[in-house]
Amino acid sequence: MRDDAGVIEVPGAGQLVVSVDSVVAGIHVDLSVCSPEDVGWKALMGALSDLAAMGSPPLGALIALCVPGGAGDGEVALGVMGGVAEAAVASGCPIVGGDVSSSPELVVAVTVLGTVDGPGDDGEPGPVSRSGAVAGDALFVTGPCGGSAAGLRALRSGANAPTAEMAYRRPVARLREGALARRCGARAMIDVSDGLALDLHRLADASGVGFRLDEVPVAAGATLDEALGGGEDYELVLAVGEGDVSGLTERSEAEGLRIPLRIGTVLADGDVRVLGDQELERMGWQHRLG
Amino acid sequence: MRDDAGVIEVPGAGQLVVSVDSVVAGIHVDLSVCSPEDVGWKALMGALSDLAAMGSPPLGALIALCVPGGAGDGEVALGVMGGVAEAAVASGCPIVGGDVSSSPELVVAVTVLGTVDGPGDDGEPGPVSRSGAVAGDALFVTGPCGGSAAGLRALRSGANAPTAEMAYRRPVARLREGALARRCGARAMIDVSDGLALDLHRLADASGVGFRLDEVPVAAGATLDEALGGGEDYELVLAVGEGDVSGLTERSEAEGLRIPLRIGTVLADGDVRVLGDQELERMGWQHRLG
Repeated sequence: MRDDAGVIEVPGAGQLVVSVDSVVAGIHVDLSVCSPEDVGWKALMGALSDLAAMGSPPLGALIALCVPGGAGDGEVALGVMGGVAEAAVASGCPIVGGDVSSSPELVVAVTVLGTVDGPGDDGEPGPVSRSGAVAGDALFVTGPCGGSAAGLRALRSGANAPTAEMAYRRPVARLREGALARRCGARAMIDVSDGLALDLHRLADASGVGFRLDEVPVAAGATLDEALGGGEDYELVLAVGEGDVSGLTERSEAEGLRIPLRIGTVLADGDVRVLGDQELERMGWQHRLG
Repeated sequence: MRDDAGVIEVPGAGQLVVSVDSVVAGIHVDLSVCSPEDVGWKALMGALSDLAAMGSPPLGALIALCVPGGAGDGEVALGVMGGVAEAAVASGCPIVGGDVSSSPELVVAVTVLGTVDGPGDDGEPGPVSRSGAVAGDALFVTGPCGGSAAGLRALRSGANAPTAEMAYRRPVARLREGALARRCGARAMIDVSDGLALDLHRLADASGVGFRLDEVPVAAGATLDEALGGGEDYELVLAVGEGDVSGLTERSEAEGLRIPLRIGTVLADGDVRVLGDQELERMGWQHRLG
């Protein structure tokens, strides 16, 4: 029920948004289809996505890297840190601390810090939780889903699907879209880390509401099941009051950000969770194929 | 050469002191002689010690816990988090985020956040680095060293040495001593994580100075080698200008804190690093017996 990121009060200094996330080789990433650089990139972006879902710009990240001690693992460590550095530049999030240990398996634990109290944010809304959706809100997603799962499938089968492969290997946290949605009055947000269906259920659980999903934007090359249950897309699901919809859409366009796609409506009855007229299963990461 | 903790500027909100540290079973802790609760305690205290060495009170900690997925490991995870919680209470550091994954080996990565800009700190000195020592400074340590190494030795041999065992299983970060030393004008600090000798060399390296060590306070039951090279004592080494020595001593006594023990003097010549009239080896964690 809780948000991916926590909020702490810094005495005399407003709110800090914080989150930690681990990537373990063999559990969260398949090293036979992605490079150490990819692992580093995915680890940082996955953690940053939790800040994006709160609408918080990043202040910095700390990396705990555990690498097996065998031959060539210095290269693995350098590769992972190279991927972390690329993601840090791409997302505007400096790396402010790190620690390297040996361990039997590659583990990358990433802590991210953010704040919504930066310059120009005076009087603007605080961090957005997943619990604020109310009946009648419009549901949006910042982009089509399932690309990451389709990419993993393609990489494993040897199919040629470069766009999907990049979605798996180099996902992007929607930091600017999340921050804009917060400023535009989004009432609840969550990132699609474990699957659109499961993450939407979580938002509905936390908010005590139901939903009707009218559309499922499916990424090129992905199946509907992958869009609903694939995860690691890191698109954001937003609940927005009708009165704020046009502002959000216009400002997204004006700022050159992804235009949120309308996918459904929040319902008062928490027991009603439907796609069209079918009940929507809690499909998600647990169910992932492969 | 860098400090264990980093400092980041929060826009409009002063400085945040941050650090991350990992504990890997079989590498940093020996699960045959300490419990999951001990591992959790040691992981948080080890990370907090990096804040102590900057003179920074803690704001909060985030825990990434990776546990093997086999039978009984739910209990390991609960045990580790129980020990983390005990250390959090003992140190006044709330746990503000966490993540649990499975992995082949137990890994606990702890990120700690602190600030020296809290209420009552207006105009007081910023975080203390390890690089500010100058020739003529007095060197202090907040307590005798080697207790942790002696405790590990006793636990492995089955000897009865409860005080030393507690020093190994339940070390204490010297947060209040570090904060007071900062307020009293300490010019450089480092915590004894890898051994008094090695950590003192690191302080001297960062400051571009030498030192003469006159005394090595040895913990009860420990050997001189354990005091110099044992590590995980988490006492603080301080370089203090002569003019600030009496203030530090008096305020430590007045506030009921550990009275720093004078161990030597900072020298201008960076090549002179002696214990009495012998060159002091860079002995430390790398050399640890067992």
